[in-house]
Amino acid sequence: MNEKIESNMTESAPSLRERFRQYVHKMKSYEETVGVLYYDLRTQAPKEAVEGRAEVIGTLSTELFKLSTSEELGQYLSELSEPELWQQLDEVDRKLVEELKKEYDRSKKIPAEMYQEYVTLTSKAESVWEEAKEASDFARFQPYLEKIVAFNQRFVELWGYEGHPYNTLLDTYEPGLTVDQLDEVFGVVRERAVPLVAEIARQHQPQRDFLYSGFDEEQQKAFSTYILKEIGFSFRAGRLDASAHPFAIGLNLGDVRITTKYLPNDITFSLFSSIHEGGHALYEQNISSKLAGTPLCTGTSMAIHESQSRYWENKVGRSLSFWKKHYGKLQEMFPDAFGSVSLETFYKAINVVEPSLIRIEADELTYNLHIMIRYELEKALIGGELEVKDLPQAWNAKYEEYLGITPPNDAKGVLQDVHWSGGSFGYFPSYSLGNMYAAQLMHTMKQQIPDYEAHIEAGELHVLKDWLTAHIYQHGKLLTPGELIERITGQSLDPAYLVDYLDEKYRQVYSLES
Amino acid sequence: MNEKIESNMTESAPSLRERFRQYVHKMKSYEETVGVLYYDLRTQAPKEAVEGRAEVIGTLSTELFKLSTSEELGQYLSELSEPELWQQLDEVDRKLVEELKKEYDRSKKIPAEMYQEYVTLTSKAESVWEEAKEASDFARFQPYLEKIVAFNQRFVELWGYEGHPYNTLLDTYEPGLTVDQLDEVFGVVRERAVPLVAEIARQHQPQRDFLYSGFDEEQQKAFSTYILKEIGFSFRAGRLDASAHPFAIGLNLGDVRITTKYLPNDITFSLFSSIHEGGHALYEQNISSKLAGTPLCTGTSMAIHESQSRYWENKVGRSLSFWKKHYGKLQEMFPDAFGSVSLETFYKAINVVEPSLIRIEADELTYNLHIMIRYELEKALIGGELEVKDLPQAWNAKYEEYLGITPPNDAKGVLQDVHWSGGSFGYFPSYSLGNMYAAQLMHTMKQQIPDYEAHIEAGELHVLKDWLTAHIYQHGKLLTPGELIERITGQSLDPAYLVDYLDEKYRQVYSLES
Repeated sequence: MNEKIESNMTESAPSLRERFRQYVHKMKSYEETVGVLYYDLRTQAPKEAVEGRAEVIGTLSTELFKLSTSEELGQYLSELSEPELWQQLDEVDRKLVEELKKEYDRSKKIPAEMYQEYVTLTSKAESVWEEAKEASDFARFQPYLEKIVAFNQRFVELWGYEGHPYNTLLDTYEPGLTVDQLDEVFGVVRERAVPLVAEIARQHQPQRDFLYSGFDEEQQKAFSTYILKEIGFSFRAGRLDASAHPFAIGLNLGDVRITTKYLPNDITFSLFSSIHEGGHALYEQNISSKLAGTPLCTGTSMAIHESQSRYWENKVGRSLSFWKKHYGKLQEMFPDAFGSVSLETFYKAINVVEPSLIRIEADELTYNLHIMIRYELEKALIGGELEVKDLPQAWNAKYEEYLGITPPNDAKGVLQDVHWSGGSFGYFPSYSLGNMYAAQLMHTMKQQIPDYEAHIEAGELHVLKDWLTAHIYQHGKLLTPGELIERITGQSLDPAYLVDYLDEKYRQVYSLES
Repeated sequence: MNEKIESNMTESAPSLRERFRQYVHKMKSYEETVGVLYYDLRTQAPKEAVEGRAEVIGTLSTELFKLSTSEELGQYLSELSEPELWQQLDEVDRKLVEELKKEYDRSKKIPAEMYQEYVTLTSKAESVWEEAKEASDFARFQPYLEKIVAFNQRFVELWGYEGHPYNTLLDTYEPGLTVDQLDEVFGVVRERAVPLVAEIARQHQPQRDFLYSGFDEEQQKAFSTYILKEIGFSFRAGRLDASAHPFAIGLNLGDVRITTKYLPNDITFSLFSSIHEGGHALYEQNISSKLAGTPLCTGTSMAIHESQSRYWENKVGRSLSFWKKHYGKLQEMFPDAFGSVSLETFYKAINVVEPSLIRIEADELTYNLHIMIRYELEKALIGGELEVKDLPQAWNAKYEEYLGITPPNDAKGVLQDVHWSGGSFGYFPSYSLGNMYAAQLMHTMKQQIPDYEAHIEAGELHVLKDWLTAHIYQHGKLLTPGELIERITGQSLDPAYLVDYLDEKYRQVYSLES
């Protein structure tokens, strides 16, 4: 009762703001908790823990969903949006209100039972997808995928859309991104990357068998650790572990963890996935502490996040300058494999381009074609121009068209990715956008950082990290992807930087004429 | 609204029971979550994670406390206690209602603000205790401990008590235990263990320097793992990790984890703490699955739990029969340390009795005297017969009286244990009760298991584990400690078994006259 009297009579902005902040902090605590549970499950929980733990994660996630759609939060958001109070809010508070309101309004438009039904469907669908992939049998997964697509179409109707219905889904992962933009940027990729891939496919491949000899797990781990320290990953505020699939997770500012996987006969997997996840981690470790404990304390979008993992993995980690500094160490740690392999040979081997069936194994160049295929198919599915039953044929046709190869079965084709079983439509384009952002950012970095290459050759990678921290990392989610890229590079997303970079690099690697 | 109509018109036991069970399951999910967060923090979280994570644990613990004191739970408990519904409940439901009601009534008697104040006080007090211990300065901790004692005295008043006020605190850890019983059992210990310790102190000590040579951490880990497998710890449903202080935690039936610590110059620490925590884990891994996901899925009391860790650590792990089987393996893994040490010499070395200042480093025999001292001091503090300011002197006097040694400073005396800073009064006696239960249970085991020693010598420890599972582990919290010990041994707790066992064992180890 006292509280009500107080809220009517003496309520002022700071106190409402304070309570809002506490509420947000609680949400973030749940998010962090779910993160720890997830990380534990993926990296170290014993076999028999899994079933019970999955339920616990479900319970906590549901609590988090309730918090993010509660009347109480709605009240905070609407009161703080009143002009009088709004004026008293600082930049962080305002962005928090905006972000949460967007999320809140979206969630509120979906009836609770529909959402519940969808959650149940997708969690079942993931198991069915696993079985279907195992059996390489799309028909088994088809009825689930049909429902998931239908749900997403209904969500789009409920959320509303402008232009293409797929735009609304894109916006979930990359705020403001549209089909028109994507068609344009992928058009550029198609026009220049497809013929380049075809040209390379006719070349003689460099030697690379030495990458696939035997590698001791402990030594691999030691080398990944070495490289992570070199790029500036803080082990005081993070960990490296092993898991079935590599991932990165920012639990809080002082706890950003990454995983990799040590394959006995392939050093490249642990090496480049460590750098890739390390790139994600650098972003999460270097956000301004003023955003700590809020939902703004993370990357601004999937694509910008991916731009960082891919910048460090490919633009740095697969560059000649980088290996001029670190190849000696690699040779020292794996003398049997690399003792008699020259730097030049090694560099070409880690930059082999080859049309292949599996996205996650694809090289830097063809990777974008894998994504383009998924984008075109998703867009058609959501737009109603393609039916789920026709998806495998459409998939195979596109692989033939863009990469010149046809999957022998569904497991190596349409069933290879988990994303659709979880309903993540609109997610795939982020990967290619990440490549595009990375190339565009690197172009600016080279202009603004004197002796850019020399720093990399000298192992002074902190110069890169500091620049990225100042321009990207520290801002967390305070700036939108569009604001960020515009502010840094002076223009909006332009795929030309990526295709120029790829063209130059791979013509050099394969000694092609320009 | 629909739900209300339903609950008035068509409510029947199964549906209320179902909702109650879901509620309880949710509580258990929170408990499991806090457990995972805690385990992660102690075993692997990076340094900079700690501050933020401690807050998250606080938030989730508060949510759990709210769940366990909510109106909703109170409603379930009172409705299910109505004779009509009660009759329809099975054994598990009834015990759940009883246990939660006891907890609920206790919590409800403490005003929320008082509890909050106490939680804040104890969490501060733990840091202050750490500093005070570091500086060996009791005066720094004194004002906090005074408040904590005063709070506990107030709690006892609010909860009510019969006989001695300390009884109510004892009941928290060992339901039904009283000061009268404890005075009697510790009387027996004092009468027979104190002179035995004094007699041994006059003897020549066996050689034991080989236990404290250099031991490789990986090898120690491998040996702990070997021994844990031998006693029946399931690594499919558990883990072994390293942490600053060893502990065991049952997260769910399929996930029971233990920790140890590898000291480079002391094999006994990792070895016996692994077996000790392994004993706790065997209990938690072998509870009936019908109790899974409920608060009954744990040991029935601190003391019964401790009886299991101590049974496996001391009665099994420090027995000659056990090492007849496993000493060869130890020699094989650490040839430098044990290659030329006979089994007999090793056995005597791991059973050295020596009055010492630090409880957690104490041997099997003197350990009980450390506990007795704490029990007598706690009882006096809570009873108001001893003031906190006089505690260090009282502590030192008792160490002189029972162990014949006086702590040189507070760090090695009254400040050595964390328990009081957290307000855990009534907890210490569980350790000695555990020893007593263990001895009494072993007496029955030897009667009921033909060739008891021969099984141990043959490494057939599953015979012991199966017996303990059938008689203790499977029941979880379904039976009280009193019911359990009465049912198994045909009588209530009797300390004679412990002192008989200790007398026989250590007279043999030290070749004393009986």
